[in-house]
Amino acid sequence: MAGYTSGFQPNQADAVKLNTNENPWLCSPKVLEAIGNITAENLQKYPEARADSFRAAAAVVLEIEPKNIICANGGDDLLTICFRSFCDADRPVVFPEPTYSLYPVLANLQGCEAIGIPRDEKGALDEMAKIDAAMTIVCNPNAPTGDFILVDELATLAGQLSGVLLIDEAYVDFADNNAIRLIKDFNNVVILRSMSKGYSLAGIRFGYGIASAALIDGLMKVKDSYNVDVIAIAAATAAIGDQPHLKMNIEKIKAERRRLVGELRSMGFEVADSQTNFVLATSIEKAAKTVYEALVEKNIFIRYFPLPDLEDKLRITIGTPEQNDKLLAALTEIID
Amino acid sequence: MAGYTSGFQPNQADAVKLNTNENPWLCSPKVLEAIGNITAENLQKYPEARADSFRAAAAVVLEIEPKNIICANGGDDLLTICFRSFCDADRPVVFPEPTYSLYPVLANLQGCEAIGIPRDEKGALDEMAKIDAAMTIVCNPNAPTGDFILVDELATLAGQLSGVLLIDEAYVDFADNNAIRLIKDFNNVVILRSMSKGYSLAGIRFGYGIASAALIDGLMKVKDSYNVDVIAIAAATAAIGDQPHLKMNIEKIKAERRRLVGELRSMGFEVADSQTNFVLATSIEKAAKTVYEALVEKNIFIRYFPLPDLEDKLRITIGTPEQNDKLLAALTEIID
Repeated sequence: MAGYTSGFQPNQADAVKLNTNENPWLCSPKVLEAIGNITAENLQKYPEARADSFRAAAAVVLEIEPKNIICANGGDDLLTICFRSFCDADRPVVFPEPTYSLYPVLANLQGCEAIGIPRDEKGALDEMAKIDAAMTIVCNPNAPTGDFILVDELATLAGQLSGVLLIDEAYVDFADNNAIRLIKDFNNVVILRSMSKGYSLAGIRFGYGIASAALIDGLMKVKDSYNVDVIAIAAATAAIGDQPHLKMNIEKIKAERRRLVGELRSMGFEVADSQTNFVLATSIEKAAKTVYEALVEKNIFIRYFPLPDLEDKLRITIGTPEQNDKLLAALTEIID
Repeated sequence: MAGYTSGFQPNQADAVKLNTNENPWLCSPKVLEAIGNITAENLQKYPEARADSFRAAAAVVLEIEPKNIICANGGDDLLTICFRSFCDADRPVVFPEPTYSLYPVLANLQGCEAIGIPRDEKGALDEMAKIDAAMTIVCNPNAPTGDFILVDELATLAGQLSGVLLIDEAYVDFADNNAIRLIKDFNNVVILRSMSKGYSLAGIRFGYGIASAALIDGLMKVKDSYNVDVIAIAAATAAIGDQPHLKMNIEKIKAERRRLVGELRSMGFEVADSQTNFVLATSIEKAAKTVYEALVEKNIFIRYFPLPDLEDKLRITIGTPEQNDKLLAALTEIID
């Protein structure tokens, strides 16, 4: 069995790293303050089993109740919890493709059938409604395509399904909208959130799920007893409490996203609009793999997927203006 | 389905907390130093996927190779990884009872049969060898009984099994011996270790597994891509690098263990020798539940398990001399 392949982590300090969708801007200073306040006494005891201090802080920001939130050791932990809760040999999962490549890996681990539906204009929602699997996953905005399915369409899908609809909003901080309102109307909707992207905290592994209290109760029984650590809880709680810092970083990324999309298009790449912190560019002039490898030679790392539906495309994380300048200059040389 | 029930976490600052086997002594100062060196740049990027810096440091201390080590988000995460790797509807797990009560919970989650064998003088090893399940678990030293099965007997068992032998050494730092040498002779042995107990780091959730390189490779495919966070890796690496600090804390606990066992016996409790940081005391004078509840009234928390084979017993974590004095004084009042 093949495991999940994560993006390459270059060792060179001067590498331009635009391959794993990390946020190039740094987290709120309040996070470092919270970490600095950690004592040996905090480390010695087991952490809050349900990370209640984060749940309380997040509930205020999200205008929901703490009972609607479950915390996880990164969004991937929440995905694992959902697969273990809702899927098995008799209960398949369905998702549109291309999407986050971990879904079929987790299906394989759980011994459940994974049904990938090629994405159409409407994100394959109609076809997935017909299948009505035990769990339907929509990554929204989607990785690696960057597009956003309207929340009203997800509401329609939720109403059509008898199984669970998992909306993976790992990148939603960079989008114009989100699906959180659906948990009030639909008992079968779970929304996944991550602190890795918007909040610049990929290092601490903190994600959470949002759903009806009944669904959260069930998921709580499946998670590890103490699945998030005391430092990560303190860091994530401080981060979500500093919304002005989040908004500032998001605006910087959106500005660079506009610039990068424009520049790439004027260089001849086909680039779809993105609601994430990356863009997916179709390489017209030269083979995507050639461009990718030429960038590696210049110590610039983006993501190339050797898959049938992605082999002519490049996924580029939005970096700082300086990183993006280096990328664009290198691309100009390579394409010419 | 019932989830795992963890020990109660009292809120009162003056509570004497001897109920969840935390180490009453604090971690190495090098851990806090490592945490203090964490920067926002460390948090922004994904952590090492395999926690290689910890593996390198642990390999030196344990005199094995980094390829023999897999890191996990607490020992519980490693247990989950093992259940997902080795067990399913057709591949049962067997363990002696009483033992760590999470094993049957994880079996239930994985949809595999859990066969509990009542422990005899030899820890039920012979009977488990006959069953030869897909995975056999021996918690050694065992929780909540505190006794230690000789490594030679575990070697015999490993040789008899065609399935995997998981030796849960979460408490081994408090024991006189350990089974690490078995991984050189047996390809089917996985040893679980935890930083929560001996290293006083229950808050950071860091455990690891030790096995043949081939077994570790397989387990790596099942773990979450980034299952331990950058701060926990730094903290655990600093902790395992400070063996003198570990030994100092262990000696303090062993001294108090001797004293507590002696005092409890002279008060009329039956107490087996312990190789852990807790003792299991059979209450003769009064019902164990009555003693437990009377201690709660005095703001002293130990563990009582309402299970057929444990209902006359109390599990008491070894505290500081002051905590143990308070416990013993309270017990004297309660028993009289």
